[in-house]
Amino acid sequence: MKIDNSPPRGTRDLLPDTVAARDHILAKITEVYQRYGYQRIETPCLEDINRLNGGQGGENQKLIFQVLRRGVPNQVETGTSLSDLVDLGLRFDLTVPLTRFYGGNQATLALPFRSFQFGPVWRAERPQKGRYRQFYQCDIDLIGEQSVLAEVELIEATTEALATVGLSGTTVRLSDRRFLSALAQAAGLPQESWDSFFISLDKLDKIGWEGVRKELIEVRALPAEAVNSALERIEGLRDLDALKLADALPTAVPTLPEQVITDLATTTDCLDQITASRELSWEFDPTLVRGMGYYTGQIFEIGHPAVSSSLAGGGRYDRLIGRSLGKDVPACGFSIGFERIVDLLGDTVRRDTVAVLYETEVPLTEVLAVARDLRARGRTVSVIGRSGKLGAQLARLASWGVTSFMHLRPGSKANTRLEERTLGQQPFLMTERE
Amino acid sequence: MKIDNSPPRGTRDLLPDTVAARDHILAKITEVYQRYGYQRIETPCLEDINRLNGGQGGENQKLIFQVLRRGVPNQVETGTSLSDLVDLGLRFDLTVPLTRFYGGNQATLALPFRSFQFGPVWRAERPQKGRYRQFYQCDIDLIGEQSVLAEVELIEATTEALATVGLSGTTVRLSDRRFLSALAQAAGLPQESWDSFFISLDKLDKIGWEGVRKELIEVRALPAEAVNSALERIEGLRDLDALKLADALPTAVPTLPEQVITDLATTTDCLDQITASRELSWEFDPTLVRGMGYYTGQIFEIGHPAVSSSLAGGGRYDRLIGRSLGKDVPACGFSIGFERIVDLLGDTVRRDTVAVLYETEVPLTEVLAVARDLRARGRTVSVIGRSGKLGAQLARLASWGVTSFMHLRPGSKANTRLEERTLGQQPFLMTERE
Repeated sequence: MKIDNSPPRGTRDLLPDTVAARDHILAKITEVYQRYGYQRIETPCLEDINRLNGGQGGENQKLIFQVLRRGVPNQVETGTSLSDLVDLGLRFDLTVPLTRFYGGNQATLALPFRSFQFGPVWRAERPQKGRYRQFYQCDIDLIGEQSVLAEVELIEATTEALATVGLSGTTVRLSDRRFLSALAQAAGLPQESWDSFFISLDKLDKIGWEGVRKELIEVRALPAEAVNSALERIEGLRDLDALKLADALPTAVPTLPEQVITDLATTTDCLDQITASRELSWEFDPTLVRGMGYYTGQIFEIGHPAVSSSLAGGGRYDRLIGRSLGKDVPACGFSIGFERIVDLLGDTVRRDTVAVLYETEVPLTEVLAVARDLRARGRTVSVIGRSGKLGAQLARLASWGVTSFMHLRPGSKANTRLEERTLGQQPFLMTERE
Repeated sequence: MKIDNSPPRGTRDLLPDTVAARDHILAKITEVYQRYGYQRIETPCLEDINRLNGGQGGENQKLIFQVLRRGVPNQVETGTSLSDLVDLGLRFDLTVPLTRFYGGNQATLALPFRSFQFGPVWRAERPQKGRYRQFYQCDIDLIGEQSVLAEVELIEATTEALATVGLSGTTVRLSDRRFLSALAQAAGLPQESWDSFFISLDKLDKIGWEGVRKELIEVRALPAEAVNSALERIEGLRDLDALKLADALPTAVPTLPEQVITDLATTTDCLDQITASRELSWEFDPTLVRGMGYYTGQIFEIGHPAVSSSLAGGGRYDRLIGRSLGKDVPACGFSIGFERIVDLLGDTVRRDTVAVLYETEVPLTEVLAVARDLRARGRTVSVIGRSGKLGAQLARLASWGVTSFMHLRPGSKANTRLEERTLGQQPFLMTERE
């Protein structure tokens, strides 16, 4: 009988090499964020189902893994609906828990509060290559900072984190939801259609300019003149450097508040300060929308030439914390696509490991004393019994990542000086030379 | 309106100081286990509900958080039972996932395989002080090692991990399921009653010798003579040193296999080697049972004078992997009670943090350049706008863990040399000296 040992559909086991690589990347990111004063917090993986369904999650709300109430009798009563049976769900992101966390613990937290979160989230998406139903998110959030310091610091910290794990040559794309709203208004789009306009614009890289235009005019039935005006203004604002941008923005969108322009100028000034050392570039991208409805100010994404999707994304959300705290608190967040970065960097961590190979005749107390002595000198030691042909066993050890070995035979401790040997790059060529 | 921001019943949010302490403890434990060759693996938090209900989990199976199938219509059809609606559950331990993991990935893993796991598990227990419905387990397992090397190495590694986090003075309590079975047999207890005998014996610290005797004879209706014989043999084997133990065991249980005695002797020999350097003691404890039914050989627990319950526990389980692999593979595991250790050690990690305090008039680009320079020198820097009275703000900063500060005022970068000041131990006594 074949026993099925696969994990649940859409999830996966992480093998030692993969975990080592992930832990290595996470440690580097954590070290950078900690130097910026971000403190790791943790919330439970389960949240109240009504909180998860509360409207912050957009499309993700349809993908919740729902958890049954405890103590419900096994025979379901007639007329019961599923929602009567469910009280909890697995979180689909780290933002919903963060807003609850801040609402509940704000009195004891620093102001502004720099939050760092790393943890699993769950979405019941159709499984496909590179997409899993359990995956990790890695978020930093700066809560309580009204000024553009928040945006700039998040971008600076995140680009440094990416550079530290080896991802240089990144591009920061920048826009502002206030700019998008002012532009929609200036173009003559009715306010109730702005969200639809943003949603269609967000599909630009998939359906192209004509696709967006068609969807807005034909499917959403928005006035053609206003749509064309909006799209023309957007096209005119692409590929501008900082100097030209400051001139072009008020021309394209005369009603744009001065604050939006100076904030963008501060962000681009600071980006200019760090581009050289990080090997990064930046651009103002008037087509950038970002999916979630809760953004209220600057929005940003970081791209890398090796992948079409972004490595990280975020923005300001000044009216989200208010839902849990009862009063608005300015906030800004940046989320690193941890799984994407791990995929991009691959499993490359190697740890020097000595195998202490012992023949059965050697007393275990002696074997362990040798291993203990090596460990006390900081070495990683795997104690392994000798079995089969030595050459074949050494080849297996090398394939499992062992880098050197010692061979303990009866009397070897007393009679000979133990010698540590390095396992070759080509384990199958190795021979026993003792 | 008061907004409820509490996490789900029985779960909790972890604040920055708590997470820092936990991460610090985990890093130290991880470092020790890695030096013993243990490699971290990770499995999904969700498992197939039938796997979780498969019998390995004992009492924990009653405490599973069950997850609803996706795509089930909201109106439940008449005659539906809950089990029709559920396909997944949150894991209640790390052993069930480990056996599945090993069964599925054995071909690519080292032999023996040294597994290290750290992750959350869920149990819908009645919430009480110090017990949570989501908590972390920290397990090492050595799979594929038949000899007592496994037991000895797990004990040596775990006592070293505990000593490294600052828990010295621990006591290792040791027994063997093979000894308990042979004892029950020698006493004349019928084989079908052995499990009941072990379960009652396991309650010794709660109900005492007379309680155990009464339960066995009166409640479980076991033959009084056999019960008394078993309990007498057990009492006679307490508080023996290694030398006396080797003599006393075959006397008390004449049918005890020689292998059990030599294995115990090897373990106690090795324990004697490490007691001095670890400040630990050990004892053979014939009353030790450990709850789970799957143990097949030596079992052990580590205690500490500061707590009545054990800090870690484990044992050999040679017939568990077979259920997922199709053939038995010897295995031995040790689990650290991570939450208990964290409770015992408290939040004591402190990280030096500089606050860069800036007046609004200072350009952000200059503020960030100062912070960047400090971070490049490895410092942890929190950039914070000046607000209110300086003394009061500094006191708040100190209460949030900030250890020193710099004060940026207009022109301060150009005109004066910036000075970093240390925040006092008594923040309310601090005065502005500028």
